[in-house]
Amino acid sequence: MPTRTELEVFLATEFPQSDFLIESLEPEQITLRKPVSFADLRPGGTVSGPTMMALADCALYVAILARIGIVPLAVTTSLSFNFMRKPLSEADLLATCNLLKLGRSLAVGEVQLYSEGDERAVAHAVGTYSIPPQSD
Amino acid sequence: MPTRTELEVFLATEFPQSDFLIESLEPEQITLRKPVSFADLRPGGTVSGPTMMALADCALYVAILARIGIVPLAVTTSLSFNFMRKPLSEADLLATCNLLKLGRSLAVGEVQLYSEGDERAVAHAVGTYSIPPQSD
Amino acid sequence: MPTRTELEVFLATEFPQSDFLIESLEPEQITLRKPVSFADLRPGGTVSGPTMMALADCALYVAILARIGIVPLAVTTSLSFNFMRKPLSEADLLATCNLLKLGRSLAVGEVQLYSEGDERAVAHAVGTYSIPPQSD
Amino acid sequence: MPTRTELEVFLATEFPQSDFLIESLEPEQITLRKPVSFADLRPGGTVSGPTMMALADCALYVAILARIGIVPLAVTTSLSFNFMRKPLSEADLLATCNLLKLGRSLAVGEVQLYSEGDERAVAHAVGTYSIPPQSD
Repeated sequence: MPTRTELEVFLATEFPQSDFLIESLEPEQITLRKPVSFADLRPGGTVSGPTMMALADCALYVAILARIGIVPLAVTTSLSFNFMRKPLSEADLLATCNLLKLGRSLAVGEVQLYSEGDERAVAHAVGTYSIPPQSD
Repeated sequence: MPTRTELEVFLATEFPQSDFLIESLEPEQITLRKPVSFADLRPGGTVSGPTMMALADCALYVAILARIGIVPLAVTTSLSFNFMRKPLSEADLLATCNLLKLGRSLAVGEVQLYSEGDERAVAHAVGTYSIPPQSD
Repeated sequence: MPTRTELEVFLATEFPQSDFLIESLEPEQITLRKPVSFADLRPGGTVSGPTMMALADCALYVAILARIGIVPLAVTTSLSFNFMRKPLSEADLLATCNLLKLGRSLAVGEVQLYSEGDERAVAHAVGTYSIPPQSD
Repeated sequence: MPTRTELEVFLATEFPQSDFLIESLEPEQITLRKPVSFADLRPGGTVSGPTMMALADCALYVAILARIGIVPLAVTTSLSFNFMRKPLSEADLLATCNLLKLGRSLAVGEVQLYSEGDERAVAHAVGTYSIPPQSD
């Protein structure tokens, strides 16, 4: 399985526009961090929905790759979000992903998004990834 | 109700990072355009999922504001996506939104995303917006 | 492809508890009918959410089988619903399904649910089905 | 707040067709049980999707009522499901609901469905309920 460094290199290559960091990496759960800066805020001083969606999508992807190896062809097939609270404007966003299923061709995971320092989730996501057939 | 120009000014103010354009604006249906450039592409030459999600979210928002007036406090409460085909790399993305419900406190809409020139949807979204109580 | 009679026989066998009828069957769109009787109503005189969910799931299934043939192993992998209005208590429910994608291994469709006689959708569903590999 | 008995009486009145039981009731988490009998099975010996959807919807409803009191006007506004594994045919279904948000007008919860005796979730649901304004 890929090391944390290998995943970080992959992230930086595959998502050069993003600045997501791997906060923790365990077999059952991974957490990404999104450093929040002024450029990420919308009028009103909150992190935008698309930033949260991009972070959740990436957390799910990293959680799967951490288990199956770096398979760039895995693709998101569905993502659903509930937005529950306004993120804090002066705190980083954290996204914790748990895989609910890791099958041969389909993975399902859920993601909780938090503002650092407040344990109540600001958003919740569930997503599915299609995993291409592996040559054995 | 707001004019197209008023909506465009609002978009440019509220979403300064985005470059979405109002392609058409009718009472029952609105379409946004996302000009796709090299910077929007992921390795493999396709538009990223987060770009599609941001465009769908914005299309739903504009469709609601075009009907209720510019109410900046309307907030997305849920969004769900199905990603069906790889967008073309050399075509703009179009997002067409139809409102399914426009109630006093909740609006529901669906969005089809296309690559210009190919009528098959690349992604489909359904979203809900919470509308704040209006002072009469 | 299966005839309408073959699909009706399949429905009656596969879903013996349901009383859903095929209202119309076209290549791009199918409609099911749920005759609503007193037993289907909840206190308050409305059709229950689970009845609507079962009807939408079945409509998606029939839409797929009508295109790929009767493949009992196709399984729902995801379904998402928005409930928008209270169905009428004295009208049948109609569910109209359009397929958004029919790929080799995954189908995606959307369903609009109506009370007969009122064109505004009471609920909207999007679902995905996994299609087993076909032996050629 | 309602007692377990009050909730059970309410369930039996509001959902007379269902046979769901309250398995456990804690402030942060409630679990419902669906006794599975032959009549609940589909060809192939598995519990039907609509049975799982009805159970998840009900679990979310009970979790909310346990916190806000018995408010029959609370209504489901959205529900999304991922179906991950085939339930066992000879085991009861259990649905455990955690509330992610309990606001004044909107509640969000997630539900994990299990076959008793197997800790891997067979399905996962996320739903939102609209809560009517309370007269104080």
